[in-house]
Amino acid sequence: MDKKIRVGVAGYGVIGQRLADGVALQGDMELIGVADVFPTLSVRALKEKGMPYKLFAASQDGKQALEEAHIPVSGMLEDLVQQVDIMLDATSAGIGAKNKVLYEKYGKHAIFQGGESNDVANVFFHGYANYEKGLGVDYLKLTSCNTTGLIRAVDCLDRTVGVEKVAITIIRRVADPGDYHRGLTNALKVDKAPSHQALDLMTIMPHVQATGILIHTPVTHGHIITVVLTPKKDISIEEAIETFEKHPRIRVVSIDEGFLGNASLFRYARDLGNPRGDMYEIALWKDTVVKSGRDLMFAINIPQESVVIPENMDAIRSSMKMQLTREDGTSTTNRYLGIGKWKNQD
Amino acid sequence: MDKKIRVGVAGYGVIGQRLADGVALQGDMELIGVADVFPTLSVRALKEKGMPYKLFAASQDGKQALEEAHIPVSGMLEDLVQQVDIMLDATSAGIGAKNKVLYEKYGKHAIFQGGESNDVANVFFHGYANYEKGLGVDYLKLTSCNTTGLIRAVDCLDRTVGVEKVAITIIRRVADPGDYHRGLTNALKVDKAPSHQALDLMTIMPHVQATGILIHTPVTHGHIITVVLTPKKDISIEEAIETFEKHPRIRVVSIDEGFLGNASLFRYARDLGNPRGDMYEIALWKDTVVKSGRDLMFAINIPQESVVIPENMDAIRSSMKMQLTREDGTSTTNRYLGIGKWKNQD
Amino acid sequence: MDKKIRVGVAGYGVIGQRLADGVALQGDMELIGVADVFPTLSVRALKEKGMPYKLFAASQDGKQALEEAHIPVSGMLEDLVQQVDIMLDATSAGIGAKNKVLYEKYGKHAIFQGGESNDVANVFFHGYANYEKGLGVDYLKLTSCNTTGLIRAVDCLDRTVGVEKVAITIIRRVADPGDYHRGLTNALKVDKAPSHQALDLMTIMPHVQATGILIHTPVTHGHIITVVLTPKKDISIEEAIETFEKHPRIRVVSIDEGFLGNASLFRYARDLGNPRGDMYEIALWKDTVVKSGRDLMFAINIPQESVVIPENMDAIRSSMKMQLTREDGTSTTNRYLGIGKWKNQD
Amino acid sequence: MDKKIRVGVAGYGVIGQRLADGVALQGDMELIGVADVFPTLSVRALKEKGMPYKLFAASQDGKQALEEAHIPVSGMLEDLVQQVDIMLDATSAGIGAKNKVLYEKYGKHAIFQGGESNDVANVFFHGYANYEKGLGVDYLKLTSCNTTGLIRAVDCLDRTVGVEKVAITIIRRVADPGDYHRGLTNALKVDKAPSHQALDLMTIMPHVQATGILIHTPVTHGHIITVVLTPKKDISIEEAIETFEKHPRIRVVSIDEGFLGNASLFRYARDLGNPRGDMYEIALWKDTVVKSGRDLMFAINIPQESVVIPENMDAIRSSMKMQLTREDGTSTTNRYLGIGKWKNQD
Repeated sequence: MDKKIRVGVAGYGVIGQRLADGVALQGDMELIGVADVFPTLSVRALKEKGMPYKLFAASQDGKQALEEAHIPVSGMLEDLVQQVDIMLDATSAGIGAKNKVLYEKYGKHAIFQGGESNDVANVFFHGYANYEKGLGVDYLKLTSCNTTGLIRAVDCLDRTVGVEKVAITIIRRVADPGDYHRGLTNALKVDKAPSHQALDLMTIMPHVQATGILIHTPVTHGHIITVVLTPKKDISIEEAIETFEKHPRIRVVSIDEGFLGNASLFRYARDLGNPRGDMYEIALWKDTVVKSGRDLMFAINIPQESVVIPENMDAIRSSMKMQLTREDGTSTTNRYLGIGKWKNQD
Repeated sequence: MDKKIRVGVAGYGVIGQRLADGVALQGDMELIGVADVFPTLSVRALKEKGMPYKLFAASQDGKQALEEAHIPVSGMLEDLVQQVDIMLDATSAGIGAKNKVLYEKYGKHAIFQGGESNDVANVFFHGYANYEKGLGVDYLKLTSCNTTGLIRAVDCLDRTVGVEKVAITIIRRVADPGDYHRGLTNALKVDKAPSHQALDLMTIMPHVQATGILIHTPVTHGHIITVVLTPKKDISIEEAIETFEKHPRIRVVSIDEGFLGNASLFRYARDLGNPRGDMYEIALWKDTVVKSGRDLMFAINIPQESVVIPENMDAIRSSMKMQLTREDGTSTTNRYLGIGKWKNQD
Repeated sequence: MDKKIRVGVAGYGVIGQRLADGVALQGDMELIGVADVFPTLSVRALKEKGMPYKLFAASQDGKQALEEAHIPVSGMLEDLVQQVDIMLDATSAGIGAKNKVLYEKYGKHAIFQGGESNDVANVFFHGYANYEKGLGVDYLKLTSCNTTGLIRAVDCLDRTVGVEKVAITIIRRVADPGDYHRGLTNALKVDKAPSHQALDLMTIMPHVQATGILIHTPVTHGHIITVVLTPKKDISIEEAIETFEKHPRIRVVSIDEGFLGNASLFRYARDLGNPRGDMYEIALWKDTVVKSGRDLMFAINIPQESVVIPENMDAIRSSMKMQLTREDGTSTTNRYLGIGKWKNQD
Repeated sequence: MDKKIRVGVAGYGVIGQRLADGVALQGDMELIGVADVFPTLSVRALKEKGMPYKLFAASQDGKQALEEAHIPVSGMLEDLVQQVDIMLDATSAGIGAKNKVLYEKYGKHAIFQGGESNDVANVFFHGYANYEKGLGVDYLKLTSCNTTGLIRAVDCLDRTVGVEKVAITIIRRVADPGDYHRGLTNALKVDKAPSHQALDLMTIMPHVQATGILIHTPVTHGHIITVVLTPKKDISIEEAIETFEKHPRIRVVSIDEGFLGNASLFRYARDLGNPRGDMYEIALWKDTVVKSGRDLMFAINIPQESVVIPENMDAIRSSMKMQLTREDGTSTTNRYLGIGKWKNQD
């Protein structure tokens, strides 16, 4: 590809920042800029770093607020949209649908996040499960963080032995580090079942039957999902683990190595020197893989802040027809993000 | 029964206190006293209440420590053992096995808690699942709090439609309120699978296949277990809920009523005026009951401090042959503890 | 006093319930009923207990919602107001000011809680610090939980050696057990200084200079306040502890006894068998009392759900002129609530 | 300085890793290697990063364990000691004293951390408070994280207006992210007073009188300390803030900017792209600075994992006489660590 695909990011929050960083790492994409509406801490940090990305204001009020905080503004969101081929929309739920008017006005492609309603997009997308469905499509919506990670594991087994059904328990972290808007103190909170993640999985993988229960927990580093999975063909625990180990976006870990829970993975990613202590891979604990009859049960960890970044890069590739197959699209993303490098060690 | 069964309690901690209170409520039992080894807060509270129960010292050192703290001591543990028909042993894991020598010396029956190893007892006991197995048996061991609550729900369905298998996810509270010995801060912790609760369920209900994963969470008010259950005979969600509602030790609740999670149940029990804010029933959220094919999935709440008290009372009844059937034994316990009264309202 | 003072409680939440229970214990008061607007868990618990208190609906919509939940309703709030001598208003902040119209309409006295703005009342009241100021006054406003507990300790020293100034750090519990509306997860939250508690203390005790900083913490069992206090006259650590020990509403505890923090006090209150695990006393850790020059520093624990109940009873006594002096008023409250009994042991 | 000072780090845990990274950033130092005893997660991360630092085994057993985990080992701790000019000892409390035998054997300087007992070193050191005392001294011990940060603020005012006394409340985070060894769940924990931090401050700054109370809280991102400080000379709030703003290792922040608490600072450091989301500066909330008479009160945030790194670099400079004055030593450290750069913006 000679010409780089020009990308803009709307919303510079938890996800938007990481999308911008992800795009900046793709050798065949160019990050034109990011847009936000308020001098948040993340925007202030962007300034303290010397404005490595151009910032556009999402509203006139926002522009004024940003300028009052001495944050350099390069124009309005509408200016940004005009300069790109595709927008990654990581604004708060519901705003994406409003921004879409702007994307349509200038005939630009856009990728929406899991918080938007499904009808904002033509295709509900997952890089590994249905890459080809997004090819050339104007508007894609990504699955949410839990569903993205879950589908990696389920799709991985599905392509090996087939999956008949899954029943999931989502042990959800309730807020991100530094999030003061949401919070839970000394309480587990139960959601009405079935969880939307189970329903979303069935939308993306209609041949699998899924249900699930979600419980919120007062922690900030990663959701844990337990999966009870009925394969079409019997598979041993060892074969299942081997299958997972081959997946670039799944990191098979063990309690014996010191991975005691979600916080161990956050610490490990910090110790790796990953920016923000982020991890793109889900983790799967090999010492939780058990069988009951043909059913397989296991636990995975979902790093909620960063897990969707690779699949968003896949989505750009699919929507812009940069690569035409799932294998090409996902492996190009992986190479630029450095995913799977560590698998070749030893 | 003319003569009351005389009961002693070894260990006046979280469980021991509640066992003592439970025995004191049984019209056909007499609490002779409790034993502990140190002037803990619970023992100090016993004194501040005016010593409603006689306290025996579990060791000579302990006696001295108690007396130095001005706690009245009525004798040694060995004295207590001689005065009772049966001991409830709620000491720390491993101590029960040592105390057993004393119980054997005086030919006294004893009930051990879930923390002891299985071989301390002749029968691994659950009031609803195998009451008759304990009849006249000298030494019974109770299931742990999670297993006790779980078996109530599984046995309840088993007697209605039969249960083929279960896969459980235990979202475990990591400490009790006021517990400074254990703790977890902003972390989920994963245990190696399968969890002992699944294995214990299979010991008590050998015809059911079970597996499970346990995740520790930093909260103090009640474990939550999600259960994926394959019944032998198909059962609708409504029928399942009706079945649960008939069980005296299961409280069917809903999110719409305001039961948002484990902490709501603790608050409700406090508002009920229950001593210590305890609840003997497990709760089952009716809005979490879902189906996937024939499989049923639902979430239950286990009030870890108090849930085993009724089954301990059942165990005394079975071991001492106070009632000869499951129905008589459990319903007598329920009547004295006031369990199920609220079911007859409206 | 021959005729009992008739009391109503508006708002049956965390504080309202405890006010109702507190009034029910006063031999010279009669609880006419409580009012609420919605079938909350507390109202549902009232029903499960068999309606020991009459419930009045605070609005027509509320009446309908309560009746739909099969909760017996004895009338409207306005009916309740007409039947009482004085109302305890424990509604959410801001509602009390609206309810006051009703109290004025029928010429009834009322006591408001700390959440209301000061101008709702004629006197900002604390049982120990300014009992006589409330005598016969129609509308009193109580200090909030932290201020109530803090003033007990400061007033106690003030009456002994005089207090020149205090600087407080409030380590605030962020939610009550079972509270899903507020929450904080793995974060401390800083408020702008000075904290309102320091300002409120100066309103009640204008001769003391006060400032303070408040930090929210993700726990539910009791605020802890550290106090740096400059006495007018030098006082030794031992004398200070002795002074605190004589105060009926201060419980002097130590780490060595096992009181390791706020959660130990909650556990102790549960083990005492106190309804809901409540405690009326603040605790003061004797092993935190230190001196720096003439300054005294110490830490106290504020059981936020129950600490204001005694001062509310004092307020009724003062407003209704049931007792004419601080000594008579507070000691009558203490006697009926059983406060200080334990001080006479050993 | 022509020849770089050769540095080794013993203990590659939370502090050791950051010390190694810090040394690697100093243009006039060379990191020879790090030593640890076990294939911890941090050591595994070092391997996954491709062994940027040489690893030495701290024991023969450790060597075997490391090799079994396929971690390349470059020799034993004793080999490392021989190759360096100075060791930074960041092993667990008590191990440093044992390692000292080795440092003495080869006549090497060493810097110990706050966990060691004071007598392990000749001087108890703080870069800003007593840099010159460490000049050429063989063994220095650093203050702990809280004391290090606290002294920055107190020393800063002391050099401006003089400080007579301080009374501190330490609201301590109980564990680091990913730490499963320690933990506290829904509880505040009180320590006996005075806190060691107050005593340590008096050791380093003997002309200041200090006392304090420490409360543990169940969070992981940064301690918060409130300081009540009596200056020798009156200083206004604005002057105090200006003084703090000039200190390179103090970051003056405000709630209005979005710094709501300790977790905001962690998030901000992650958003800055700082490795591991670390921050070398303490933060001081300008909206918490208040006065009561002449006394000043304010709150600071201590990023416990990284705050001591700069003062450790200062200690190497002082012990090895790389710079002979406090100004030269600390400003060289600051330049290499990039501290204070952001102060020159706007």
